[in-house]
Amino acid sequence: MARSASLLWRNLRVYQIYGANTDVGKTIFTTALCKAARRLYRDELTGYLKPTVPRDADLLSSIYSHLAKAAGSGTSPDGWFFIETAGGVHSPGPSGTSQAELYRPLRCSVLLVGDAKLGGISTTISAFEALTLRGYDVEAVLLFEDDRYRNADYLRTYLADRHRGLPVVSVPAPSPSEAHGSEEDAESMRRYYEETSRSDAVRGLLGHLDGSHSARVARLESLASEGHQRIWWPFTQQKLLSPDKIIAIDTIIINSKGVAPAGVLDGSASWWTQGLGHANSSLTLAAAYASGRYGHVMFAEAIHEPALALAETLIQGMRRGGGGGTHRLSRVFYSDDGSTGVETALKMALRAARTRYGWAVDSKLGIVGLEGAYHGDTIGAMDCADPSAYNEKVEWYEGKGLWFRPPSVICREGKWRVNIPAEFGEAGEIYAESLTDVFDFRAREGRGEHLLYEAHVETVLRHHLDKGRKFGALMMEPVVLGAGGMVLVDPLFQRALVNVVRRSQHLFSPEFVGQPSGNGTDWTGLPVIFDEVFTGLYRLGRFTASSFLGLDADVSVHAKLLTGGLVPLCTTLASESIFRTFSSDDKTDALLHGHSYTAHPVGCQVALESLRQMQNMESSGRWAPFQRGWVGGTDDDGARQQDGAAGNNNRASRSCWSIWSPQTVDWLSRRPSVAGVWALGSVLSIHLESPGGAGYTSTAAVALRDALRATNHGPSQNPWNVHSRVLGNVLYLMGSQTTGQEVVLEIEQLLRRHLS
Amino acid sequence: MARSASLLWRNLRVYQIYGANTDVGKTIFTTALCKAARRLYRDELTGYLKPTVPRDADLLSSIYSHLAKAAGSGTSPDGWFFIETAGGVHSPGPSGTSQAELYRPLRCSVLLVGDAKLGGISTTISAFEALTLRGYDVEAVLLFEDDRYRNADYLRTYLADRHRGLPVVSVPAPSPSEAHGSEEDAESMRRYYEETSRSDAVRGLLGHLDGSHSARVARLESLASEGHQRIWWPFTQQKLLSPDKIIAIDTIIINSKGVAPAGVLDGSASWWTQGLGHANSSLTLAAAYASGRYGHVMFAEAIHEPALALAETLIQGMRRGGGGGTHRLSRVFYSDDGSTGVETALKMALRAARTRYGWAVDSKLGIVGLEGAYHGDTIGAMDCADPSAYNEKVEWYEGKGLWFRPPSVICREGKWRVNIPAEFGEAGEIYAESLTDVFDFRAREGRGEHLLYEAHVETVLRHHLDKGRKFGALMMEPVVLGAGGMVLVDPLFQRALVNVVRRSQHLFSPEFVGQPSGNGTDWTGLPVIFDEVFTGLYRLGRFTASSFLGLDADVSVHAKLLTGGLVPLCTTLASESIFRTFSSDDKTDALLHGHSYTAHPVGCQVALESLRQMQNMESSGRWAPFQRGWVGGTDDDGARQQDGAAGNNNRASRSCWSIWSPQTVDWLSRRPSVAGVWALGSVLSIHLESPGGAGYTSTAAVALRDALRATNHGPSQNPWNVHSRVLGNVLYLMGSQTTGQEVVLEIEQLLRRHLS
Repeated sequence: MARSASLLWRNLRVYQIYGANTDVGKTIFTTALCKAARRLYRDELTGYLKPTVPRDADLLSSIYSHLAKAAGSGTSPDGWFFIETAGGVHSPGPSGTSQAELYRPLRCSVLLVGDAKLGGISTTISAFEALTLRGYDVEAVLLFEDDRYRNADYLRTYLADRHRGLPVVSVPAPSPSEAHGSEEDAESMRRYYEETSRSDAVRGLLGHLDGSHSARVARLESLASEGHQRIWWPFTQQKLLSPDKIIAIDTIIINSKGVAPAGVLDGSASWWTQGLGHANSSLTLAAAYASGRYGHVMFAEAIHEPALALAETLIQGMRRGGGGGTHRLSRVFYSDDGSTGVETALKMALRAARTRYGWAVDSKLGIVGLEGAYHGDTIGAMDCADPSAYNEKVEWYEGKGLWFRPPSVICREGKWRVNIPAEFGEAGEIYAESLTDVFDFRAREGRGEHLLYEAHVETVLRHHLDKGRKFGALMMEPVVLGAGGMVLVDPLFQRALVNVVRRSQHLFSPEFVGQPSGNGTDWTGLPVIFDEVFTGLYRLGRFTASSFLGLDADVSVHAKLLTGGLVPLCTTLASESIFRTFSSDDKTDALLHGHSYTAHPVGCQVALESLRQMQNMESSGRWAPFQRGWVGGTDDDGARQQDGAAGNNNRASRSCWSIWSPQTVDWLSRRPSVAGVWALGSVLSIHLESPGGAGYTSTAAVALRDALRATNHGPSQNPWNVHSRVLGNVLYLMGSQTTGQEVVLEIEQLLRRHLS
Repeated sequence: MARSASLLWRNLRVYQIYGANTDVGKTIFTTALCKAARRLYRDELTGYLKPTVPRDADLLSSIYSHLAKAAGSGTSPDGWFFIETAGGVHSPGPSGTSQAELYRPLRCSVLLVGDAKLGGISTTISAFEALTLRGYDVEAVLLFEDDRYRNADYLRTYLADRHRGLPVVSVPAPSPSEAHGSEEDAESMRRYYEETSRSDAVRGLLGHLDGSHSARVARLESLASEGHQRIWWPFTQQKLLSPDKIIAIDTIIINSKGVAPAGVLDGSASWWTQGLGHANSSLTLAAAYASGRYGHVMFAEAIHEPALALAETLIQGMRRGGGGGTHRLSRVFYSDDGSTGVETALKMALRAARTRYGWAVDSKLGIVGLEGAYHGDTIGAMDCADPSAYNEKVEWYEGKGLWFRPPSVICREGKWRVNIPAEFGEAGEIYAESLTDVFDFRAREGRGEHLLYEAHVETVLRHHLDKGRKFGALMMEPVVLGAGGMVLVDPLFQRALVNVVRRSQHLFSPEFVGQPSGNGTDWTGLPVIFDEVFTGLYRLGRFTASSFLGLDADVSVHAKLLTGGLVPLCTTLASESIFRTFSSDDKTDALLHGHSYTAHPVGCQVALESLRQMQNMESSGRWAPFQRGWVGGTDDDGARQQDGAAGNNNRASRSCWSIWSPQTVDWLSRRPSVAGVWALGSVLSIHLESPGGAGYTSTAAVALRDALRATNHGPSQNPWNVHSRVLGNVLYLMGSQTTGQEVVLEIEQLLRRHLS
């Protein structure tokens, strides 16, 4: 069982003592607890720590090292450790960071010293909540008895109602004279500690903590095996999954090693959702705010601020990030995940095509798409993908499409290549100097590279249409096929496909005589759906993946990074042209689709905060160090960057960058075991040679994945390893949008070590 | 634009002054603000309130009344109002309730007075967070300057980072002598107020508040029309939806009138999700805790505590709540909403049937179900429902089933009737004394009432099977068809259907020769799926709706109330017999289904808290007053209740109860405009006479809905109205699990008034 982070050892009970305020008795309680532990657990170690190191990362790693040594990898005798904080929960630590934030990666069990004075009920509950919303477990609240305010009585009732079994322990305060420091006082305090540490309250508390520590460890140790009995895992052959392979997550997996002793580096960006680091407290507070303000809003015929603001942010972001010049997307439909968002998109597009072309409701409509597509796991979304290991055994799967095998882009032996499949007539490779050149449509279209693509698309479409097939939408993932194998598609081909579809007003319904309104935002040919669930919202370095193609979709779908890895939410954006299709005096002509939690305020508020943070990173130049590595390499690039007036398409086509360095991509591309590699945005995709065939069932990448996972890196007291995912012969690594250069560098070194 | 609750008027800027602690200067700041407002806004009203009324509800309504009078329905001159609280944010109000909780229904804009003393950074941030997680907008933080601690400087940086534009306003503190009360002091304080209220800081603050109040009102007033331009609403014909009909939700809709001045009573339980009241702070804190502890967990091959604990809670709850004696459900698969949960269930069941019966992967498998079924909006879920207004215009819809029109139960003219459709051969009605008698299977099966049902089911099944059709699952909503028209199905029929399907080992595949393992939990005939998304988890008064039938499903689906109206989450439970089907050495035999946010910790933690609260309500007898009305009415019932040893089925069949009184059901059932009525759990379903035909497109219930919505009830200063939803000719009302008797009574009176 691999376990992630936190100050948890079977043989060492570690508590961090937080105060509801300053001057509430933290030191007194800590001292009494130490004394009581020494007396009651004579054969055990009892330790105390009040750490002061200026840098946050050093502070955490020194605490971790100190305790790891005390625990002796679990071989030392049992023991107790108390770590005292300074001031209140949010009082600044040595570096100025709030302590509740600073210590969060350790997620130590907490004893909260409450405030017995007037006002202390409020500060104690507030402190309790500040800790809770950072994921701490408060194991007990301790405070002095006070006959006047009786805060302990109130807190006992209040907290018991809400947090079953949480002890509120009160002891008499030292008399004022006792705490003043003279010799007589010292003797008096000695007596006070003697009595307090022998009191039933303190002894009972230690017994409780001992029990709950054992229970916590036992539960964590059985989590994998209990889960193995109860859980049906997604995308997992459970016969091949023994409990020892299951990762029991006790707390956040961290993906910023800097503040993460003994951590797991989340190399799959938590199934591609992660943008702002796990358990980002701004996202937590956004979720809590919306929960407290709204709870649930029944969204049919209602509106709330986060839903509207998010719709506005997305529409504006798509416009700024779009390269097409037209601004098609103007409507937002909410659903719960990529699958439901794709199904919504599909319903929108098919209806638009069917009504414009006058087809009967029971017409068999297909979609046009790409081979290797993946749009989700509900039946309608599955039917949009070509047959593959994902769907071929699913009973109701019935692929309803025409899928083009796309030319793909990869770096091999230091060269970027576009691989053109045989069916294009002129199979072969196009070479490019750089990834940026692959996206330089002006140059490539100038050389006529798109003509082969357009001719092929037109031929194939005509062939199928001539056979009487009907199509209702073009659906694809712009730039990268994700679950279909982390394939970088030649963007010029995707442009060609869209362009052919859009200019062919009469291709899809020869008898059609109408015209779109001609304002430039109406769909033509077929509605174009971009599934940006994985590729959008900065995963590839830009707000929208469509900007890489210099095209606007008629419908596009956005999820995953939308909520920065917190809660499910999906948005399907559509143009007015699509929207108008459903407008009628008959209510059954409406899009009769919806989920109970449609546009749930928690998700919308979190998404707003997530987008705000990423947009700020973009505008503040946070990614400039990465970008310089990719675009600042040559004089030519420098000159190009100044050429800002040359139009959207051109500018957009230039800024291809990744957090992964071009040097590492180059190095990887020259390994004998590597068939090819590419990097864009936070994604690095390594295609390994696979003698037994590539694809989902290949196991070629498993060895590398296991090596990254098994090896501990970093100093021995502060180890970390990399958790990554494979897709057949492909191992990919994905950072979050906050991943720093030093982390990337370490992982790159690690890759080089394993692939040398 | 109907607007819900909160102290918001265009002409009155109202602020509640909270303190980070006691003795931080709330009164001084409030006084200075009042003085400044009087001076700067000479023609306006400036008011001050420090409310003290013992009962929470009285306190809220007196504040509301006072301010509503001051605002004069928006006709009075503009003004300012400052409401001072006592102590810190969580200090107990007059009744003992924490003030932050107590005043939440008013959701007044907040000015937070921070603490300038040592430790004050911590108490100020904690107080800010306690307010935020209750959905308050903190408009500014005010505190005294202090050269030693400089808390204002720290807070300015800290808060600006996280909350754009939030002003942190500091002013000099009064000198210690000024605050002491002698005559000289009074003069000195007068001078202090004079200076402070003229200071740039305070003047600037008022200007800022004036601007943000105007902006807030303007935004709220444009929310509906802006939304109308940007949002694509679910289940809504937008051509028929003008902005004036859109409800702009500024804050929680409340469904407990007791603490809700000027509120909207949420009569649809927020699309059937609501169980614990909107914005329940225990759910908020649960969400925040999981967010802070985990963020996202990539769930494939991983496990975390809330996912396991929720799985255990559900499995145990189903066992305790199940009436069948066997305990089939033992596995939990997580997804995002009812639709995805149903699709998962379907994939599970079809695979189980296909592999056992040896059918080819491309066999056309149908499901057996009920007419009027509704299982969600993704294509696979839609295909499980018979053709209806919901799906008949959807391009990829292709009903894949055999649907039985079920006998239904309704109360009319004071009598409970089971309506048996003509195709059963002996069409007609069975009468029952009470709803409880309808569920008394021992008695009814003793009278042989099930024989007609079983014979019909067998005949129809054989007919279709003889034609070569193949079926892979029986799927239905136990007891109530929700979206299909809020129909109470005769539970005896559902039992008969399941029993025929289960005992017919060879019916569905005549050539089948194998046997189930015979341990009593294996599926036989066809896997039985119960879609409890709407009917389960106490909506009908019990943990599981299957207990009403005295049957266990092989697969069951749970959502909506699961998370108490906070975030999307769905669970699909399955038996080991179903689970084993997917076990293989080939990873592509696994259930290759999953969503990015599968088992997201926030949802699981919230669900745990939601279930815990509802289970506590059940075990503590919270619903006893309602239950007494239904089962304690006659001597006969009393005698029956003591007969506890008569077996599970029998006991379960007796406890039919509703929050809606049997007297009101009886009264409604005798109205000429009412075709029938039923109530169970928190649901009241009124079927109105509809000359133009019933069904989704009927408008018969719209008039009653509009009447409930348009009328203001309660005192004029404290009005409320009822927001309800219709399904064709059916108007339903749905309480939450916390709705009190006095609220139900008021709504019942209202119904009587409108239907007299």
